[in-house]
Formats: sequence, structure tokens, C-alpha cells
Amino acid sequence: MGTITIKDVAKLCGVGVSTVSRAINNHPDINEETKTKIMKVIKENNYIPNNSARNLKRSNSKMIAVLIKGISNPFFSKMIKVIEEETQERKYSFLLHRVEEREDEIDIALELVKEKKLRGIIFLGGYFTHSEEKLSQLDIPYVLCTVGITGKWSKELCSFVAVDDFKESYKIVDYLCKIGHKRIAIITTSLDDTSIGLIRYKGYLQALRDNNIEPDMKLVRSMKDDIETFTMDNGYVVMKELLESGEDFTAVFAISDSIAIGASKAILNAGKSVPEDYSVAGFDGLDIASYYNPAITTIRQPVDEIAKAAVTILFDVIKKKADHQMCVFPGELIIGQSTKLI
Amino acid sequence: MGTITIKDVAKLCGVGVSTVSRAINNHPDINEETKTKIMKVIKENNYIPNNSARNLKRSNSKMIAVLIKGISNPFFSKMIKVIEEETQERKYSFLLHRVEEREDEIDIALELVKEKKLRGIIFLGGYFTHSEEKLSQLDIPYVLCTVGITGKWSKELCSFVAVDDFKESYKIVDYLCKIGHKRIAIITTSLDDTSIGLIRYKGYLQALRDNNIEPDMKLVRSMKDDIETFTMDNGYVVMKELLESGEDFTAVFAISDSIAIGASKAILNAGKSVPEDYSVAGFDGLDIASYYNPAITTIRQPVDEIAKAAVTILFDVIKKKADHQMCVFPGELIIGQSTKLI
Repeated sequence: MGTITIKDVAKLCGVGVSTVSRAINNHPDINEETKTKIMKVIKENNYIPNNSARNLKRSNSKMIAVLIKGISNPFFSKMIKVIEEETQERKYSFLLHRVEEREDEIDIALELVKEKKLRGIIFLGGYFTHSEEKLSQLDIPYVLCTVGITGKWSKELCSFVAVDDFKESYKIVDYLCKIGHKRIAIITTSLDDTSIGLIRYKGYLQALRDNNIEPDMKLVRSMKDDIETFTMDNGYVVMKELLESGEDFTAVFAISDSIAIGASKAILNAGKSVPEDYSVAGFDGLDIASYYNPAITTIRQPVDEIAKAAVTILFDVIKKKADHQMCVFPGELIIGQSTKLI
Repeated sequence: MGTITIKDVAKLCGVGVSTVSRAINNHPDINEETKTKIMKVIKENNYIPNNSARNLKRSNSKMIAVLIKGISNPFFSKMIKVIEEETQERKYSFLLHRVEEREDEIDIALELVKEKKLRGIIFLGGYFTHSEEKLSQLDIPYVLCTVGITGKWSKELCSFVAVDDFKESYKIVDYLCKIGHKRIAIITTSLDDTSIGLIRYKGYLQALRDNNIEPDMKLVRSMKDDIETFTMDNGYVVMKELLESGEDFTAVFAISDSIAIGASKAILNAGKSVPEDYSVAGFDGLDIASYYNPAITTIRQPVDEIAKAAVTILFDVIKKKADHQMCVFPGELIIGQSTKLI
């Protein structure tokens, strides 16, 4: 007989999962008769609550760290959730450490390794421009997860998990071209940036050129330095400025969904419509992109798969089951209601 | 002379903050001349980068834990960010541990305390129904932060930081009544729940009664057991069902902004309009509530202040500077475009 789950118990008792949960946790607001019945079924079927307190008892103070650049980005919230689940499942704890935009993550990692008994590290977000020499100081396993890479170093040093930002960015801008847009603005990082923003910007340029559209630098807009980057606030301010500049354009590609939502709101607040007046496209595939009004056309990054792969690879390396890996996931173009044929 | 910040350096050099950051971090893509100028200004003004690697060096393996129920709730993402910042500022590390809906957070906390050198705990979300006897087993300082409380215990055991969920819920439903709504639905937790949902539901009932409106149980809708609670997905499904039931109503109060956005999308997808056909109100005051189209009327919880207070109180207790405190913050009614006078 297979393992019985809380859902099975609920089904056997003819109640909801939350009722079973209340019975297990001794909540006051549950009918005594129902509770007795549930506890009987639990006992008869040897149901063992998936209780992480029990898991902890079996653990041996094992810990990894997640160093994150861009902790406010909702894209990372989901990723942290999955990493947390996957780590807990392996009976490890996980230390979350925010890295400021201007901080050196390797220095921070080296200090953390020194003072905590870390078994591995996942770097989330940001971009790596470090030298191979510097990287090799970090002598525990680590994985770069959705980190922009511009440095060149040996593949044996660490693992890498992400989508191909150039290709995915190309894909969505090419789509805008194919539905007739010729004046396509972009909201990206500053142009002397070396991060993921630069890679997505290059994808935009290539897609325009391959569609015989000459890029117009007046339509290339950078996020503001003095507002947190990759936020709705930043997208709003940049789009408001673009609208007020009077530049002629029919579509905008924002390099994240949060920016795209901020940009959409700026268009709506200016009394214009999305997509009738301007088409808007984002990147990430956040839940909110599909719930927005109108739903935002975007590139869905397989965040669950990416986060799971990061943890799996890290633990494979920790347990010496495998070497470091480069793992590139395909993104998916999701066509919402925020873009239209012209 | 006061401390010089990165912004001051940027101003002195006539460049952006991110350019200064690139100079400090040895990024390749920066003009050499600019970099030399920046490094000169930094040296002349004794600017010290706010580098958490330096902070770490001074620390002494101090660690607190945050135990969170409802890790997917975007309301908590912002709170985790602030807690992380405040903790890092105090040169402590912070362990993030997710607690499943059906798990007992005290058991988990007891295990964590045993195996890690924890100095304190912040419990985030969920609800406490534990007995005083059980709570007193946990003999390190802890703070309940936006946790629903139904148990009764001595105030010396722990601190508590949150808004008054009854009062704030009353406030927004009273507003709906005052702008003429009489058939007001609610999307809440299941009615045998003892959590924050129950408290907000009670506020709803009281507001209706004080406005001489008889509550109609057909308009009281519970989130689905089999979908993650407090999500857009759950709000969408519940609202779709309510619309299809043909019940007569003109407004809905969703007990979180995410639920309210899901509900709005269900209304829009049914070919109806918000607020022309149905007014929608939420709770939390997430950024997305104001960026949604239409902007969602909501109760803004002062998430920054709540999170900062939780950390301040915890460290005051750890350092024996103060006793445990009950700290209730006022929420703010934010009137968006999702509700209208009828």
C-alpha cells in the first residue's frame, strides 16, 4: 500500500483538507464528532502528517545560503518559495541573504562561508563580472541562478541555470515586429550596464534589425537610477516621460512584467488605451501578468523548473553525484491582450 | 562633517549612482577616466561603501529565524525584505523557514532552537491557537507579526505586532455601505477557520449590521480548500462561481488584495465591468492594488512600520532593553477606482 496523504484522509472522511488540518492541529473550532472521525481514519490508515518538525529532528544542522540581488522582484519571491520547499525536503536549512546592487556577492559569500557551516550557495539575480581568480576563492559548491554572466571562466567552477535572455528577448520583440509594429520602444537598464538588461537589450536590437527596422535611440529608455529597478514605480515614471516626450511609437517592450505593468498604468492614466493606442509586452511570466487588465503579453520563464534545477544541481554537486552543469531552459511566448496587430 | 553616501559621491562626480557602483565594483563597462575621477572623490571624502561583507566581519554568528505561514503571499514578500534589511543592519543573519498551513509552528520553532544558535524568532502569518503551557516551552524571545490570535495567554510570553483586523475590515465594509451598497459579498476563509479571515469576517458582519443590512449567507463565500489560499487564482475561481450562481449583489469585499485582483479579473472575463457592474474592495495595500486597472480600493497595512517594529521589539527583548509589547498599527482606507457610489 502506498503512502496516504492528507487529501486521502479528507476524501475518506468526506471533509475538506483544512478540516483534517484543524483536527491534527487541535484547533478549537472543529466539530468534536468530525474530529473523532478524522483521528480514527488517520490512525487506521497510519497517516503520518508531513511535518517539517519531524524532518528537522532527522537533520544534522545542514545549511545552504541563498544570496539574492533584487529581493523586491516578485519573480524572485516565487523562486525563493520553491528553493525553500526543495531545500526543506532535503532536510537542509536555508539562510537568506540580500545583496545590495552595489555590493560584491563573492566577498559576502566568502564571509558567510567562514562563519556559518554552509554546504552550498545559490546566487539569485544580479550579474557576475568577477575574475576566475576571485571565483576560485569560493571553495564550496555554488549555482548561479538567473544571474547575468559577462565574465569568462572555466565551467568547472560553478553551475548555471537560467533562460537564454538574448533568445527570449529576441522572440518577443520579433513577435511585435511580425504583428506590424515598426516603432517599438524598450524600457531597460542603463546602457552602460552589464547585466541581464544588456543581454535583453541586445536581443531587442537583433530582432529589430532582422525585421529591417533601424533602431532609434530616442525609443531606448533606461530605468531611473534613483528608483528601485525592475519595479512598477520605475516603469511608470519612464513611460510617463516617454509619452510626454511626444516620440512616435506604437509598442513598448519592458524587460520585466513589473515594469510592463507600471508602463501600462502610465498609458492608462494618460487617458490612452492598451493595446488600442500602445501595445505593451513584458518579460518573466508572473501570475499578475495574466491577471492584469489587459493581460500582459510576456515571456514565461519556467520559474519552478529553474528553481528546482538549481537546488537539484547544487545537491548533486554537494553529494558529489555530478559535476557542475550549464542548464538553459526555454521560455514561452504568452500572448495576452496587451498587444495588437496594426 | 557627516557621513558621505553613495548619492553624495555621484553628485560630486556628476554621474549616476549606478556609475559610482560600477566604479567601486570594478565593472568592465565603465569609462576609465570616469572611474579614476570617482575613485579620487571617494578617497578624498573618505567614503566607505555600505558593504555588508564588512558588517559580517564584525558579527559574531548571531542569528534569528523567521517562520512564515503563507510564503506565497506578496504581502509577506515586502515584509521579509524589510525584516532582512533590519536584521542585516543589526549584523545578524536570518534563517527563513516556511511552515505549512497544517503544521505546528511551535514544534518547528522548538526544533530549530535546539539545533541552531537562534537568538530570537519572528512568526509571520498564520494564527496561534496554542495553549500557554505549550508557548512557554519556547524559551527564547519571539514576536508574532500579523499573526491571528485566538488563544488567550499571558502578555509576558511574547510580543505582538499587527493592524486591528476587525476594525480595519469594519472600516472598508462600512465605506461600501456608505456609498450605497446593500448587497455586499465577501470572499474569506472557510467559516470554521479561526484565523485572520475569521476576524475580518466578523468586522464585515458588524459593519453590515451597523448599517442596518441583514447579512445574507449566500453572499458569504469561502476560498477553495484545494487552491492555495489568499491567491489571485482562488479569488478568480470563487468570484466566477458567485457570478454564475446568479446571486444579486453590487459589491464584494475580498479579504486580501490578491483575492480582489483575481475576483476583478473574473468579473472582467465575464464581460462585466469594475466598478460599473460590481465594486471590488481588497485588503493589504499592495503596490499592485494601486497599479491595477482599475486601482483597487483597499486597506493599506503599514507593512514597513509593522516589519520594523517586529524587529525592533525582538532585539529590544533580546538585549533586555524592554519587556514584550503589544503593538497595533492603524490601517488606512485607500479609495481606488474599483468602487463606486450607487
